[in-house]
Amino acid sequence: MSAPLIAGLELGGTKCVAILASGPDAIHERVELPTTSPAATLAAIEAVIDGWRGFAALGIASFGPISINRHAADYGHITSTPKPGWAGTDVARRLGARYGVPTEFHSDVVGAALGEARWGAAAGLTDLAYVTVGTGIGVGLIAHDRPVDGLTHSELGHIRPQRLPGDDWGGTCPFHGACVEGLAAGPAIAARTGVKGQDLPADHEAWEGVVHALAQLLHTITLTGVPRRIVMGGGVMVGNPFLFPRVRHSLRQSLGGYIAIPEVADVDTYVVAPALGHNAGPLGAIVLGQQALLSR
Amino acid sequence: MSAPLIAGLELGGTKCVAILASGPDAIHERVELPTTSPAATLAAIEAVIDGWRGFAALGIASFGPISINRHAADYGHITSTPKPGWAGTDVARRLGARYGVPTEFHSDVVGAALGEARWGAAAGLTDLAYVTVGTGIGVGLIAHDRPVDGLTHSELGHIRPQRLPGDDWGGTCPFHGACVEGLAAGPAIAARTGVKGQDLPADHEAWEGVVHALAQLLHTITLTGVPRRIVMGGGVMVGNPFLFPRVRHSLRQSLGGYIAIPEVADVDTYVVAPALGHNAGPLGAIVLGQQALLSR
Repeated sequence: MSAPLIAGLELGGTKCVAILASGPDAIHERVELPTTSPAATLAAIEAVIDGWRGFAALGIASFGPISINRHAADYGHITSTPKPGWAGTDVARRLGARYGVPTEFHSDVVGAALGEARWGAAAGLTDLAYVTVGTGIGVGLIAHDRPVDGLTHSELGHIRPQRLPGDDWGGTCPFHGACVEGLAAGPAIAARTGVKGQDLPADHEAWEGVVHALAQLLHTITLTGVPRRIVMGGGVMVGNPFLFPRVRHSLRQSLGGYIAIPEVADVDTYVVAPALGHNAGPLGAIVLGQQALLSR
Repeated sequence: MSAPLIAGLELGGTKCVAILASGPDAIHERVELPTTSPAATLAAIEAVIDGWRGFAALGIASFGPISINRHAADYGHITSTPKPGWAGTDVARRLGARYGVPTEFHSDVVGAALGEARWGAAAGLTDLAYVTVGTGIGVGLIAHDRPVDGLTHSELGHIRPQRLPGDDWGGTCPFHGACVEGLAAGPAIAARTGVKGQDLPADHEAWEGVVHALAQLLHTITLTGVPRRIVMGGGVMVGNPFLFPRVRHSLRQSLGGYIAIPEVADVDTYVVAPALGHNAGPLGAIVLGQQALLSR
């Protein structure tokens, strides 16, 4: 049985990727578009997808926060984003109605998680987490092949971690100050050091607080009981691969042997880099479309 | 259609409750037994259930840690508990084989969550959390009517929270020191103050750290994106109801308006006491049995 053709859309803060595909080895079209105003961006996306034929479903993985509650009036909308003009923008209802196919809508990081789980660094695993560390910090949690959600999607990047002894820097999150995002995202690193993460040497002392905050996030994610593997992506991780062994070491120390399960004990295979690169999100949108088909 | 008759077992650290029921208004039998050695306790449970007829499934909600991975050799076992004699005890395989009915096995706190979601303080909600604050701190998370799990069950009571400024007390958790359980469970309160929680006056300064740690746990649980309501039970909460308004206030302050969703904004209905009392766990076991029937 050949996999059905799906239209996938990754809607990002700076660019969008629309793909027509049934998997990583069957990408029929792939178009990148800049993210500008909502009206111009959605019109450009529609101009692309209008030309496609034969797709059975539509999957959309979007920056957020977004509303994923199908019973809510604002379902399918980007809700309270600070991105100028985008708060309150309807994405999934509009595109779902235009193309008349089953449509699934979720966060960009859930999309990346689903892509990595199907074809990437967590291939074959039903339960995983994808953590992006970039302009913000986001977590996509998948259990039994489905996104973990309910009231809304995960916002675990905004948990308040235990701090390193003697470190009382206030962090940069406008809501929480020293939450994980306020301590370890790209803008936090730049604010604390005056240097962008990609230019900060590996032996700079500021990395210690970044590593500790990220390990605390992974400690928490592990204790949800869900992931069999944690995939860490985003600009800060991709640009500074020396962070991986340090985060793994800090996570192991923090857990203190509490979760006595082989998957966690082997921390080198428990915390890994992504495998799909810039296609994780778009391919995740394909998986979302497949799930829309299944749950129709 | 009348609900099927289910055999339910809550296996607790000090006592077990076996019930034959189809719901809270149809409890045919209810037997309490002390939890002693594994051999004596399980034999006593079997002597009770052997006398029951006509149940279609078996649900077991157990103290832990437990193995809920059906593909693992130790599925259905209590795994690494410090409770003398119980580590490595097979519960669910043994009872499931003895009675030959569909059997579901999960944590005691997931059981309580399912009971409160079906018939109690979260009735009608598909997504909720149950937090017990007693000898330990446990979290049961339910999304779309199902327990949130994967690698294992939740252990979120062991996250390491941000601390109150100036508070560097080391906590009592043998694994993590000042995790939430090490700061706010009954034994932690007693260790810090020399007084048991039930005898500690409401204006004792030690409650400040307890409230803060519990609010940080609720902050984290909220940011998983799952619960539409958080039910807080266990001896420390039930014995000290003044904690509820204080934990709600601290949670609201900690979130800082970040999750702009009505369910969370109305913190008085977001964080609530249980409604089923000592029957939450046993009735949760009935729900687990019903789920075993459905997924057969």
